[in-house]
This record gives sequence, C-alpha cells and structure tokens, in this order.
Amino acid sequence: MRDVFIIGTGIVPFGRYPDLLLEDFAKEAVTEAVGDAGLGARRFDMAIFGHSNGGRVAGQRVLRELSLTGMPILNVENACAGGGTSLHVGWMAIASGLHDLALVVGMEKMERGLIPPNPGEYESFLGKTLPAKYALRARKHMQRYGLTIEQLAQVSVKNHSAGALNPNAHYQQEVTLEEVLASRPIAEPLTLLQCCPTTDGAAALVIASAEVADQLGRRGVRIAASVLKSGIYRNSSTDATASDDDLAERAAAAAYEMAGLGPSDIDVAEVHDAFTIGEILAYENLGFCERGEGGRLVDEGVTALGGRLPVNTSGGRLSMGHPLGATGVAQVVELTRQLEGRAGARQVPRARAALAHVQGGSTPGIGTGAAAVHILTTEETTSVH
Amino acid sequence: MRDVFIIGTGIVPFGRYPDLLLEDFAKEAVTEAVGDAGLGARRFDMAIFGHSNGGRVAGQRVLRELSLTGMPILNVENACAGGGTSLHVGWMAIASGLHDLALVVGMEKMERGLIPPNPGEYESFLGKTLPAKYALRARKHMQRYGLTIEQLAQVSVKNHSAGALNPNAHYQQEVTLEEVLASRPIAEPLTLLQCCPTTDGAAALVIASAEVADQLGRRGVRIAASVLKSGIYRNSSTDATASDDDLAERAAAAAYEMAGLGPSDIDVAEVHDAFTIGEILAYENLGFCERGEGGRLVDEGVTALGGRLPVNTSGGRLSMGHPLGATGVAQVVELTRQLEGRAGARQVPRARAALAHVQGGSTPGIGTGAAAVHILTTEETTSVH
Repeated sequence: MRDVFIIGTGIVPFGRYPDLLLEDFAKEAVTEAVGDAGLGARRFDMAIFGHSNGGRVAGQRVLRELSLTGMPILNVENACAGGGTSLHVGWMAIASGLHDLALVVGMEKMERGLIPPNPGEYESFLGKTLPAKYALRARKHMQRYGLTIEQLAQVSVKNHSAGALNPNAHYQQEVTLEEVLASRPIAEPLTLLQCCPTTDGAAALVIASAEVADQLGRRGVRIAASVLKSGIYRNSSTDATASDDDLAERAAAAAYEMAGLGPSDIDVAEVHDAFTIGEILAYENLGFCERGEGGRLVDEGVTALGGRLPVNTSGGRLSMGHPLGATGVAQVVELTRQLEGRAGARQVPRARAALAHVQGGSTPGIGTGAAAVHILTTEETTSVH
Repeated sequence: MRDVFIIGTGIVPFGRYPDLLLEDFAKEAVTEAVGDAGLGARRFDMAIFGHSNGGRVAGQRVLRELSLTGMPILNVENACAGGGTSLHVGWMAIASGLHDLALVVGMEKMERGLIPPNPGEYESFLGKTLPAKYALRARKHMQRYGLTIEQLAQVSVKNHSAGALNPNAHYQQEVTLEEVLASRPIAEPLTLLQCCPTTDGAAALVIASAEVADQLGRRGVRIAASVLKSGIYRNSSTDATASDDDLAERAAAAAYEMAGLGPSDIDVAEVHDAFTIGEILAYENLGFCERGEGGRLVDEGVTALGGRLPVNTSGGRLSMGHPLGATGVAQVVELTRQLEGRAGARQVPRARAALAHVQGGSTPGIGTGAAAVHILTTEETTSVH
C-alpha cells in the first residue's frame, strides 16, 4: 500500500440550514477544499461522499453544482461512522495505486431532527433509543469505576470551551458545570448539554498520492493509518455483560500497528462524543488511559486545550454538532489543520501526530455498527513509544 | 493491483416480500454464497452492501442475523448502479492487497414502489421521471437511426423468454410481440412490458485473492476488469444534443483496456435494461455493434439465447425485476454461473468472457449518475480481438 497525504481541507459552519438543499451547503465545503489544495484545472480521479439522509446519488448532485463530474463518484452510508468510512474508501483507492487524487466529503442535512429507528429495531421503538443506550453505559461506568456525574458534565464544559473558539461550531459559547448539570434531563444521568444537538453540516478533504502531493507542494500531512471495523454482535437485552468497548479498542489497536505509533505518541485527538459518556469510554478504548480512569483524565485537565493530550479541540460533537456522515470528515479537517499549525485560537503547540475516532450504528444490539480510526502524522513523525 | 476471483454466489428469488424485512431475505443470499464458496469457519475480512432504501447500517443488520460480525462492514449507495459500485469497492479492497476475502451484497426492498425524486429535482416533479426520460431517448433513436417500435418490443420478448427459464426471475413467463405492443402505454413509445417491474431482491458474491481462492479450490472466475465512472453533466433541458451515451462508453473502454479484451471477445453479457431502449443503447455504448445498429442486433437474434452474444440471459431487469442496489450483484451472479457452466437451461455454451453493465442515477440532468462495468473471465481466457 502506498502513502496517502491530505492536501486540502474545507468545512462549512455547522448549524441549521432549513432553507437550503444539502447540495447548496455541501458544495461550499468542496470549493474550499479544492482551493486549499491549489488544484487549478486538475481533476479528481474519484470522489467519495459519506451521508445517511442525502437520498440517491447525493454526491453526484453536489458535484453537478460545481461542474465537477466525469470521475467515479460513490456514496457511502455507515451511520455516525459514515464520514470515517468514506475516508477509508478514499484512502484505499489511493493506497492501492488505482488512483492518485481523490475527494472525500462528509455531509448531512438532519431534516427529521431525530434519527428514526430502522424497521425491525423493536428495542428502539420501545424506548431504547441512542440517548437511553448511552445513559445505560454511563450508569454502568459509574457503578463499576466510580465515574461521577460531575466528571461526565466536565466533558461538556471542556468541549464547549473549545467550541467557543471555533467559528465553524454550531454552539460557540462556554457553559458552566452548573449549567450542564441543571439542564433538562434527557436520559439520566445525561442532561441536555451532554447530548449532541441536531445539526446540518459538511466537510471535505482532498487526498493524494506522494507524487501528486509533491507536484502540488503539499506533502504535509500523511494518513499513517486508516482502519474500519464493525462490532461483534451481542444481544444487550439478554446479555448483561455485553459491551461494545472492544469495537473501538480493536480498531485503535489495528491503527496503532499500521502507523507504528502508540497512544502516548498522539498529540491531539477527535473522538466520538455524541454523548459525554462516549468521550470517557473513548479515552479508555483508544488507550489514552487505563480502563476506568477516563473520568480522572478529564478531571485533571489532561484532555483540555493546554493539557498533555487535547481531545475534541473542534468543540467535538457536543459543541460542533453531529451531522452523521459529516462528522468523521470534519474531525480530520480539524486535525489536519492542527498538524499544519492552522488551528487558530485552538492550536495545539508542536502537534505532530493526531487520531480521529468515529463510531456508531450499533442499535439495537451491541457492536453491530462501525468504527473508523485514522492516525495522521506530519511527514517527519517517528514513533517514540 | 492483484488478481481477484469470484469464489461463491448466492441469490434469492426476485419478487415481492411485503411481509419480510430486508434483512430477512438478504441473509438468505449471503448464506447461499457462503455455502457455495465452502468457507467453513473462515471469516470475511470485509463486507460491502449496496442498497438505496435499506436505512442506516443495513449491511450490519443483515450480518447480525447470521452472527457474521466483527469485520469492516460498509454500505454503498449509487442508485441503479449501487450493486456494481459495491463490487468495485470490494474488488479494490482485495486488488490493493489490504484484504483477502470479502463479501459483496446487493439488496433492496422497494417499499415505496416508485422511486421518489430527490429534493431539488424539479424536472422530475414536473413529470420528467425515469420512464419519460427513457421514452425521449427512444424517440431520438427512432428519429435518428430508424429504430422501430417492433425492435424495441422485441427486447422485452427476448428477455422474458430467458426469464421464463430462470427460477429466480420475478416474472417467469414468455410474452409475445403483440402482448408487449398492446400493453398499457407508460411513456410512449414505451409500454408496460418495456419497463422493469417493482421488485424486491438480494444477491451476494464471495470474492478472494488468488491465494485464498486456491486454498478453497475455487480459482475459476477472475474479475478481469472493474470500472466505475460517473457522467459528465450536461443540462438536458437546455441542451438538445445532450446524451449520456458517453458514460457507458467511457466505462466500457476503460474496462476493455484493463482486461486486455475487446467487445468481440465477450461471450455473454448482462446490461442495464430497466427499459427496452436501455438495452439497445447499451449494445452500442458497449461496442457490441455500431452506433444506430442496436435495433438490428436484436432483430437478427444475435443477443438472444442461442445467438452469437446472448445478452441478459437472466431475464434482465425486464423479467428479473430491478431492485436498485441488488441488480449489479445479481448480474454478476448470473455471469459467474454462466462461466462456471452452472446456468441450467440458460447455459451459453463455451462461455469464457462475460461483461456486466449497470447504470443509473442521472435524473434530472444528463450524465450525473454512475455506471459500473465488470468483465469476468475463466482462468484460461486470452484475448482474440
């Protein structure tokens, strides 16, 4: 497999676009990424679009608006992991030697607000929706490891604090611990400010082989690992010990091996904080701390801006919002800009290795969804683990 | 890129499954393909599912039913070309060296009957639906090249004749030329029996590297070419010369080059006959005859069972039915079985090279969709063109 580089990034401000079509705002992310890469008249060899609600050939509809047609275009669906999955397909197309220059777009218009259950997902119809599932995970962690509701809430405080510095975040305001705890209960112990809002958005990446990256003078950020996994199914209704922690764990282990790096090499990360407990579990599953120590990590400020390993410097899903297919690509836009030193007020000093983790789609059972883990490095990065 | 082999096929009878969930019948196609490949306890490295209406993580829902989880699973949408696109992604995963054994599934439950227009497709809302578009293409061909309504209708007669021999076809009965012409007009000159029915279905392929194919004793059918393209956008409302013939033409040219074969090497083909005119245009775009000669080809029986180049021996979309994402995979199931000599009453003698063409998603403009062309060969095939 050949090296693959990220040579352009684009993103639109996340928020609500009730009066626009998906293609109207998604094309803006593409235009920015194309301009950032300095492609000129050069055309993509392939384009991959991640989304869940876009309807048929949504990627083609976006590129038609820009008269960027003729190359292979495909659309990928993988629930909350759709964006990361799209990048994995794009990475494969270039790493394989088949193509040299590809566009990867994540986009979503969350028209229906809530995510409707699939037919046959009886548990969801009976109330075991995503917030309820995450609430159960939080309860279990509190019981087993002594996680506190304040530690949980602190994840929201931290991510909103970063989001306040991000002009592309849906909610750009800080919140206090008291405000998080006092906000409306959604599925206890999770309160409103511990759940991601309903958000539209789009983000785009231009990725290239070493040869094309060199031609364009943009061999800055390399995809050191690209891993997609799905979970091992267990019925969470009948098996009380069921957990899907192993999904992110296995994806991360494979990514670290592919990159030749370990968790201690990571300087900045974006992880899947659709709910606060998700970020706590991600710390542990990705090896940022020992099992059960996630609450302590956020308490000690390790994962805040200015800490040893800042996590969700974009504001995360809690502050950016979580347009399903857009999220995985938006994470990588943030991390690429961190590695390029272009993250503005959110810049992590001397960031050389970054990790993106996105995960979802496991209702109603455990572990049947998907997780994508990408590790990005600056060209000169070598492992110190 | 490494060689990729098809080592197992599965398909469920196409028809209507109003009382079943998508996963209920799709899993049966997977089970047949797994059994056909003789995988035993061996697990897939990756699984790719093509569909347009399956909802979120539909592939994961299917494999959960079979306790086949843990590998990377992704879902692909590309309208009528979704199945061919899925095979292209699977081919890429193995040809790249990343994986050795993959599952490719096309499936669809056409719950809504008709295909609703995407938001923003104003022409479709105003009546320029798929049947109307294909009717315009037919009119143009009649005007320019003298295609007759009898030649058009003969495509339906031919494909229903093949479908009558296929236990997996939705409609397994022959129709006469008179019946086709006398059936209800849908968008003149296209009558009801010249339009594909509304059909649910699923098909599955097991694909593998040479090493794994050898281990399982199944190095029979090779994917000699896998090509995905999208069209070059032109506004068909303002540009009377606009045509999307070049989409299949460019995809086929790239496939012939990759395979080192030409149109005259092909022994059997499945082409996109969602409407009769689609098959006529495909003959010309794929190089089976000169431009304008498509009507003559069907008139002379060249593409019928027993002809020099049988096309749509499965019964095609007209008789099999056309569950969007399922179609591209079902085509390759048919062709693989033809090359293996397992096509029963539809067997084409001495078939050594086969071509599958699937195409769609170009509403409302021209050429913004996708086309996938795959060429399959028996191991000993070499070009004679």
